[in-house]
Amino acid sequence: MFSLTVCDHIMVAHSFRGEEFGPAQRVHGATFVVEAEFRAPTLDESNLLVDIGAARVELRRVLDAMDYRNLDEVPEMVGQNTTTEFLCAHIHGLLCDAMRAGKLGEGGRNVTGLKVLLRESPLAWAAFEGPVA
Amino acid sequence: MFSLTVCDHIMVAHSFRGEEFGPAQRVHGATFVVEAEFRAPTLDESNLLVDIGAARVELRRVLDAMDYRNLDEVPEMVGQNTTTEFLCAHIHGLLCDAMRAGKLGEGGRNVTGLKVLLRESPLAWAAFEGPVA
Amino acid sequence: MFSLTVCDHIMVAHSFRGEEFGPAQRVHGATFVVEAEFRAPTLDESNLLVDIGAARVELRRVLDAMDYRNLDEVPEMVGQNTTTEFLCAHIHGLLCDAMRAGKLGEGGRNVTGLKVLLRESPLAWAAFEGPVA
Amino acid sequence: MFSLTVCDHIMVAHSFRGEEFGPAQRVHGATFVVEAEFRAPTLDESNLLVDIGAARVELRRVLDAMDYRNLDEVPEMVGQNTTTEFLCAHIHGLLCDAMRAGKLGEGGRNVTGLKVLLRESPLAWAAFEGPVA
Amino acid sequence: MFSLTVCDHIMVAHSFRGEEFGPAQRVHGATFVVEAEFRAPTLDESNLLVDIGAARVELRRVLDAMDYRNLDEVPEMVGQNTTTEFLCAHIHGLLCDAMRAGKLGEGGRNVTGLKVLLRESPLAWAAFEGPVA
Amino acid sequence: MFSLTVCDHIMVAHSFRGEEFGPAQRVHGATFVVEAEFRAPTLDESNLLVDIGAARVELRRVLDAMDYRNLDEVPEMVGQNTTTEFLCAHIHGLLCDAMRAGKLGEGGRNVTGLKVLLRESPLAWAAFEGPVA
Repeated sequence: MFSLTVCDHIMVAHSFRGEEFGPAQRVHGATFVVEAEFRAPTLDESNLLVDIGAARVELRRVLDAMDYRNLDEVPEMVGQNTTTEFLCAHIHGLLCDAMRAGKLGEGGRNVTGLKVLLRESPLAWAAFEGPVA
Repeated sequence: MFSLTVCDHIMVAHSFRGEEFGPAQRVHGATFVVEAEFRAPTLDESNLLVDIGAARVELRRVLDAMDYRNLDEVPEMVGQNTTTEFLCAHIHGLLCDAMRAGKLGEGGRNVTGLKVLLRESPLAWAAFEGPVA
Repeated sequence: MFSLTVCDHIMVAHSFRGEEFGPAQRVHGATFVVEAEFRAPTLDESNLLVDIGAARVELRRVLDAMDYRNLDEVPEMVGQNTTTEFLCAHIHGLLCDAMRAGKLGEGGRNVTGLKVLLRESPLAWAAFEGPVA
Repeated sequence: MFSLTVCDHIMVAHSFRGEEFGPAQRVHGATFVVEAEFRAPTLDESNLLVDIGAARVELRRVLDAMDYRNLDEVPEMVGQNTTTEFLCAHIHGLLCDAMRAGKLGEGGRNVTGLKVLLRESPLAWAAFEGPVA
Repeated sequence: MFSLTVCDHIMVAHSFRGEEFGPAQRVHGATFVVEAEFRAPTLDESNLLVDIGAARVELRRVLDAMDYRNLDEVPEMVGQNTTTEFLCAHIHGLLCDAMRAGKLGEGGRNVTGLKVLLRESPLAWAAFEGPVA
Repeated sequence: MFSLTVCDHIMVAHSFRGEEFGPAQRVHGATFVVEAEFRAPTLDESNLLVDIGAARVELRRVLDAMDYRNLDEVPEMVGQNTTTEFLCAHIHGLLCDAMRAGKLGEGGRNVTGLKVLLRESPLAWAAFEGPVA
């Protein structure tokens, strides 16, 4: 199995609801380093898994809707605790949508799996992985 | 599949028995950066995989029994070659015990897999992963 | 010249005023990795520059006043653009205060210089360095 | 499942054929950080997955045939686009050959899987993983 | 003294002349991670050392003339050993030119020093620092 | 001013005397990542600050006397608290000796300053810098 990973980052604010979050119930923020790992069993005739330039553009497009924002106010996240885990699955879904829409070109159609990992600090990170339905 | 990883480190001494270890047969030491990756198929209603604070506390509690010690003299390791691989499995077992004992709360009960990775230097690391029995 | 650096991090929200900030005028956030580098020309009789445990405690105490907060609402920062550069100088001042108050013990009295560096992302960081007045 | 990873790097030149590569059609280069992850279900009686010294020597031997070269002129790669993905699979094959030839000793015979990961920049990397046939 | 650092990277080929370079006399390549550290004694009224967006654009513009190229064929480098040390000084000169030309805006006029650091591998890097003449 | 840095690591055991060291009074250990930064105002006619191969060999030779050892038993360190700060100055002295003895070749004679930095964990490091007397 091959994989190709591209990396970007966002700088967002948010707050959490629930006593278990302690001080993170206050509005605070994070730099999330975002790693998107595309998986495919074979390469194309150019020896590429996916067009890395297209992958970067799509990842950036998906992240632009969140970057430099307070996630508490982003319409599709209102009422959600935007934990690192949640954001991984959210970005995963948006990248799968992009692949299904052909935004990653022919190579994107060979992608069978995707893992999205977000680093919230040097000491903690989360990920969501699943098939590209 | 979701995962959440927390990171800590220990500073230990030890020595190895066996010619294949070369100079590492002498008492020497290591800073082990320890990454504990908890895996679960779903999040709880707060969008958490596991309480990250509780995960950190349990990881630290497990590591405290080794930190700033000569592992050659730690009772449950006497007679073992405390290789990086061995320590990964050892810490994996202790964290699984903690989860079974409910130390990671309700979220901990959803954890189906655990990977423990120890970095011994910038150029070498080991891991053990397995189900949370 | 000797130096000793300790490292911690904070997760904060803030916003900037001024067109040059573009999208960063919106409430957003950052994980700031904070590195405090203490400098001294000599070590004490224990071969320490400064008590590393005390240095960590003081850095954490200084950071606790900002961590998990919206800096736009922190009283002593109201009306300031809390840029990475500004935060470096702000933390520098608070750590110098702590040293003058003897919070870093005898070793702290030998410290002649301090550099505070904040990493806002893998691609950008800022620092402020100056004498410990 | 246990894993042990060793890390090295190479500095190579190459060029790509195909419009999708844009400026990378020109002769350019890369520092590839190479991570070889060996997997085995059990450790030997010394608590080792594989002799880490032998693993490093074999990885270096495999990399020496590419290091400080223009891959466009390396005989077994002529006519190939030596993408990061391709190089991962290529190195994977050579390390599997080494294991089958007994170059990693008895421990090497327990290795059931191998993942080779190449980092081409801080923002992009690729990998190939598969069984050790 | 304040500093602000922005980071980018290039992927280049080159070769060296001189026996002391050993295998690096062959055409090979490198990913150079480039860090440009701007220094100034004061911040502007927005609490900025320099417009970070403009700094990134200028660094990228300077790097574009080298990126994805064989430096042996870049006109202004022909006949030079393009060592990491040399490239640091070369990029330093181009960024100083940009600042003198006002490309970094008003903030750029406060910059008194510049350090350019290039990482050629995880194990080696070089830098050139000097005043902004 | 130019600088060139090479990086290596050692894995050592040691213990400290003095109540202020707390649990570090026990025999424990560390992986020290060692960075040696050589400084010179000019490059040689090959555009090199110092022969990087020779620099690596000398750094390794110096570290070999400590690597995989209990520093409490290394003759020239007996009776010393081998703190990270102390080790920086110790290695600095040995590398200066090597340069004075011509071990870094002609380039080594241009080196005017040296900084030795040791990382003991991801959260703490120390350094010693001074002229090459």
